[in-house]
Amino acid sequence: MLTIELNYQSKEPFYEQIYKYIRDEIKEGMLEKYTKLPSSRGLASHLSVSRNTIDMAYSQLISEGYIESIPKKGYYVCELEQDFPKISLDDDWEEVVKEEEDYLVDFSPNGVDMENFPYNQWRKLMKETMQTDNSELFQLGDPQGDLSFRKTIRLYLHQSRGVNCQENQIIVGAGMDYLLLLLGMLFDKTKKIAFEEAVYPQAYQVFQSLGFIGENIPLDSQGIRIKELEKSGCDIAYVTPSHQYPTGIVMPIHRRLKLLAWAQEKEGRYIIEDDYDSEFRYHGRPIPALQGNDRKGNVIYLGTFSKGVSPAIRISYMVLPQTLYKKFREKCGFYSSTVSRIDQEVMNQFMAKGYFERHLNRMRGIYRNKHDCLVQELKQFGLKIQIFGESAGLHLLVQYFGKKKEEELLHLAKENGVKVYPLSDYMVKKKSNPYPIFILGFARLSEEEIKKGISILRKVW
Amino acid sequence: MLTIELNYQSKEPFYEQIYKYIRDEIKEGMLEKYTKLPSSRGLASHLSVSRNTIDMAYSQLISEGYIESIPKKGYYVCELEQDFPKISLDDDWEEVVKEEEDYLVDFSPNGVDMENFPYNQWRKLMKETMQTDNSELFQLGDPQGDLSFRKTIRLYLHQSRGVNCQENQIIVGAGMDYLLLLLGMLFDKTKKIAFEEAVYPQAYQVFQSLGFIGENIPLDSQGIRIKELEKSGCDIAYVTPSHQYPTGIVMPIHRRLKLLAWAQEKEGRYIIEDDYDSEFRYHGRPIPALQGNDRKGNVIYLGTFSKGVSPAIRISYMVLPQTLYKKFREKCGFYSSTVSRIDQEVMNQFMAKGYFERHLNRMRGIYRNKHDCLVQELKQFGLKIQIFGESAGLHLLVQYFGKKKEEELLHLAKENGVKVYPLSDYMVKKKSNPYPIFILGFARLSEEEIKKGISILRKVW
Repeated sequence: MLTIELNYQSKEPFYEQIYKYIRDEIKEGMLEKYTKLPSSRGLASHLSVSRNTIDMAYSQLISEGYIESIPKKGYYVCELEQDFPKISLDDDWEEVVKEEEDYLVDFSPNGVDMENFPYNQWRKLMKETMQTDNSELFQLGDPQGDLSFRKTIRLYLHQSRGVNCQENQIIVGAGMDYLLLLLGMLFDKTKKIAFEEAVYPQAYQVFQSLGFIGENIPLDSQGIRIKELEKSGCDIAYVTPSHQYPTGIVMPIHRRLKLLAWAQEKEGRYIIEDDYDSEFRYHGRPIPALQGNDRKGNVIYLGTFSKGVSPAIRISYMVLPQTLYKKFREKCGFYSSTVSRIDQEVMNQFMAKGYFERHLNRMRGIYRNKHDCLVQELKQFGLKIQIFGESAGLHLLVQYFGKKKEEELLHLAKENGVKVYPLSDYMVKKKSNPYPIFILGFARLSEEEIKKGISILRKVW
Repeated sequence: MLTIELNYQSKEPFYEQIYKYIRDEIKEGMLEKYTKLPSSRGLASHLSVSRNTIDMAYSQLISEGYIESIPKKGYYVCELEQDFPKISLDDDWEEVVKEEEDYLVDFSPNGVDMENFPYNQWRKLMKETMQTDNSELFQLGDPQGDLSFRKTIRLYLHQSRGVNCQENQIIVGAGMDYLLLLLGMLFDKTKKIAFEEAVYPQAYQVFQSLGFIGENIPLDSQGIRIKELEKSGCDIAYVTPSHQYPTGIVMPIHRRLKLLAWAQEKEGRYIIEDDYDSEFRYHGRPIPALQGNDRKGNVIYLGTFSKGVSPAIRISYMVLPQTLYKKFREKCGFYSSTVSRIDQEVMNQFMAKGYFERHLNRMRGIYRNKHDCLVQELKQFGLKIQIFGESAGLHLLVQYFGKKKEEELLHLAKENGVKVYPLSDYMVKKKSNPYPIFILGFARLSEEEIKKGISILRKVW
């Protein structure tokens, strides 16, 4: 007979206490294999519980394979053959602790201004979407993203970016990294990929982590150098033509045409156009996408709502040329969508109802003010610095012509509570520049913070 | 002089009309390279617009590289070198049209009951999360998922599934497919992966699309056969021990211990435990996760909120053993999270406030009723069928012992508006079974629909 001390105070039902007791006895070898357990009637009377309680405990032990019921004989402990693994202490577990850095002013090129986000409208759309009669929206959706959403994206891309495509060519995904991951599966791993020498580091890392070899192609004032690209032996070029990241170079039309001609020269060549922040240009119209001039299906267009809405809402999109789309359907068409359908529908309505355009227009004004304020403050440096890559996007570049070296400048800024980002961190291959260049983002800063940050830099640099 | 017909009715500003006119003239070769454009003053007076309008148009053309300004000389059309690509008609574009199938009763094993979802609570949490003072939540978050959310998941997994882990071992991702994709990047592509012969097809496809070789290991009544696994030469085994998908087999404890012993035999062996629907068991307690018995770090645990909340809300999680975690940090630690931080926080609160547990308890009752109803209806078939894999999950299996063949049964069901899912579609390698087995899901059906569907099957089968 098993004597089990039942805890009458515990919330745990009796059957669970009995099940756990017997399970642990078996685990620890106290109840050996082939041991006959008391009958459920006998144990019930012994423990003064209902027979049903014992039956439930036994039935759970049977389900998990600790005991078996042999008809007309009773319940027996199973042979486990293997011992239970002994507990190993996790001594070698290295906690990854990120250095918590606290800056007065952080000129990060990432992040967006969320003070001016239309929370009310977004909440309203969320509420409207989250209705019981929308319950179909809560089932699994189209792997490429919902059709209605792709239609809205198509219209937006055509009108705002000059992109020509059909809904079917659009793949919605949770972030650029994910879309690049999918894209990487469409290319032969032996293909070399050309990156502009200064680059969005994640893109380079994604392709590297997939086993591709990345080549480093120099930039001139018009973007990626075609001669060097031709010499590189690459068949795929990752570029940011409308606003080179991070240098801000705009690729002029003749360079674009040359790049397209390069892609057409050989079967299987592709241009990946990352159009990451085309929404924000402060003088004149946005620069149209390269994709709009592609007639042969060599351009893969990538865009995101990270800058226009929020980086926390993980919605990006990719427009595949038809040649690649077929391959996509074959190789990754089965991957479930990574974007919540609720989020898709909210973003869809946000665009379709005109809120997105209004928000972008408003933010363009707000960012322009911050941008102008930053430029104004920087001008007080005089000839010691030069500004690059301004008038668009959410950051600009500053080259320092004083005597101090990059490391010293970084150190001085940090010591005084200001974080700036050296361009050298964005270079595929580090190259020494006698006059260091820094990236200054302004999206998340107020004008006061911008003024404060630059005034500190003026003092210590 | 350029004569441009300005449209006074258009919403398009004049500068944009002028810019587009000149751009298109250059594109079409009407304005040849090196052509001198009129001065801005001259063109302004010719078109009766302000000089500022012309300056804006010229400045946009300069930005895009169509014209250049030569100091003291004026504006000139640039040499483009390449012609613009001619328009190619997209004749060969194959529209992928999915066959729209309309069934009276669809016994799909996918999808969940959303009629009983606590929309009000979810909406309330959404509203609370979407507050301006939460604006930090709208910036890019931790690549593994927010720490507070991982803490909540850890607690849940420990209490409900017996999973032992630290927050750092948890990776939150947008769906199982995505997490398997990441996981695939941690393994050497030469490793063979063992799959149970009946399998969640997406898992098999993901690894196949990544270039892995998948081996097909037979199942017996206790799950994957260890002898065959040993013979297979595989180092990684993908299993569903708590509720084999789709057969519903529960792997008993002695088989689990053997599987763990297999993994410990050789360096670099791993078990992928896909715990996709462990929440729903209708008699007794849930079967604990295999991971809870792992002491050597051989088990990778995967779970999802697709069944417990909704497949449309793309939140899954993976618990990596420490050995793999380090590799993960190195190889994919930089990948941005694929789950919106808003959704993470809403799910976090949904769990932390006890709504999730309440919802699961409620759904367990609702699904049990549907399950029992389906079993009841099926019993009327008599000896012609046998039921398998019942008492847990959102589907069960039915084997048909009549004279009709699988294809005929499927056809008869379809003709009469009922969709059933043959097990053969879930087999890694098709094998002919004289008595076909079908999967019947019940989550999305009402009891009336279940009764109707089975009564039709009884008539036609």
